[in-house]
Amino acid sequence: MEKLGRRSLIKLAGAGALGALTGSALASEAAAPVAPSAANGPKQIPWPYAALEPAATAEKAFLAYARGHCMHGVFDSIQAQMAERLGGRFQDFPSGMFAYGAGGVGGWGTICGALNGAAAAFQLFSAAPQPLIDSLFSWYEREALPNYVPKGTKFPNVPSVAGSPLCHVSISHWAKKTGKTVYSPERKERCGVLTAAVAQQAVVLLNTQAKGAAVDASLAKATTTCMDCHEQKSPLENARARMSCGGCHFALGTKHPLL
Amino acid sequence: MEKLGRRSLIKLAGAGALGALTGSALASEAAAPVAPSAANGPKQIPWPYAALEPAATAEKAFLAYARGHCMHGVFDSIQAQMAERLGGRFQDFPSGMFAYGAGGVGGWGTICGALNGAAAAFQLFSAAPQPLIDSLFSWYEREALPNYVPKGTKFPNVPSVAGSPLCHVSISHWAKKTGKTVYSPERKERCGVLTAAVAQQAVVLLNTQAKGAAVDASLAKATTTCMDCHEQKSPLENARARMSCGGCHFALGTKHPLL
Repeated sequence: MEKLGRRSLIKLAGAGALGALTGSALASEAAAPVAPSAANGPKQIPWPYAALEPAATAEKAFLAYARGHCMHGVFDSIQAQMAERLGGRFQDFPSGMFAYGAGGVGGWGTICGALNGAAAAFQLFSAAPQPLIDSLFSWYEREALPNYVPKGTKFPNVPSVAGSPLCHVSISHWAKKTGKTVYSPERKERCGVLTAAVAQQAVVLLNTQAKGAAVDASLAKATTTCMDCHEQKSPLENARARMSCGGCHFALGTKHPLL
Repeated sequence: MEKLGRRSLIKLAGAGALGALTGSALASEAAAPVAPSAANGPKQIPWPYAALEPAATAEKAFLAYARGHCMHGVFDSIQAQMAERLGGRFQDFPSGMFAYGAGGVGGWGTICGALNGAAAAFQLFSAAPQPLIDSLFSWYEREALPNYVPKGTKFPNVPSVAGSPLCHVSISHWAKKTGKTVYSPERKERCGVLTAAVAQQAVVLLNTQAKGAAVDASLAKATTTCMDCHEQKSPLENARARMSCGGCHFALGTKHPLL
């Protein structure tokens, strides 16, 4: 039930996330428990953000996964805490709608739902979401995850490297590592634990940006090597992507000038 | 500014989308211009839906693309119309947050933003979004798109087959077909036109379901052939996906039992 306090608002102003936050609004904050920027209403983004506790958010994400899957898990763990602080109409957001992200959107195996939910939260709570997306997605591709295990798990945690932001690739690598099938209870729990780990990292990044520090948004060297010839302002400029190329292009064939 | 009328509400009730819509609520509709189910507030999903005009929605999506990219374009073209009819707190939704879906989420090339926005709208406005997602995504993979050209385009429309729900694959196929680069003005306009086409198809599907009819949610034969060995309840059950396998597995190698 904690409303946004003066110190939190100063942090927000310092991060440049609240362009409309005026001195007079700050002065009137003591009389108005709801953040001054909330006068604009929830339709305007970004919503005010102030540091959340990463591990506590991870625990909430694990519980929210059980209610509405991976995308909902990450998004709701962040949004619900901030909506409670902001109060009023900010609490109307229908976060149950993010159930659609399960299994890489309706089971289609595209983007990992935890990443889809985090990206949605970044755009809702940050005036500069791009470095947050780049940092989180690069981390997700390269790290052995989950790197956090919430309370109440039933199975041993087996970290694996996704190698891609895609649900299908992430799950396939986990299945190969563990020998479990992709609809096993172990896999279902693993995606909940991964949801917790992604929520924790997302909050670490939001907190870093909120205090005015930079996040590491560098992409993998293997990816930028491909991008040098294929992405924006390159000789070919015939491909648009930042995700790991090797996640799909694992057999380039003899025609490609392998580097 | 049209509020939901009696006929629209009967359609909604017919589609089973409003479980909480009681006879007494219908009887009091004349006195209360806002839909009775709106008494639950916008936090509860699904929101009431009544048929929208497909071509008009496509035009709105093209304009919304210019304001906030592909995911926002499709989502906002549907949500804004319904929010206007529902009125009040339903108009608070911060649809600008869906700018994050651009370029397959922050330029990462994962799911096409138009599909991401449509899936979000399906979950917000339907009690049974899965067949809508399956139908729309299968159509997107297989059809030569865009199949609709909104007013105000500058370049000739060149349809191409995406072969995948992924932004990166969809854009690569278009670039190969047209010889244009992926950051050209033609490509940027093409994604806006595609946004319009996807919004139109999404509304056709929502309308079909809202009147109680079934949508064609069958997957491509090439995909189900792979799924028979790799997906749920198959001999291997080692892969989770509904997207076209050939979009990435274009070189299976000699070890795979090619069918």
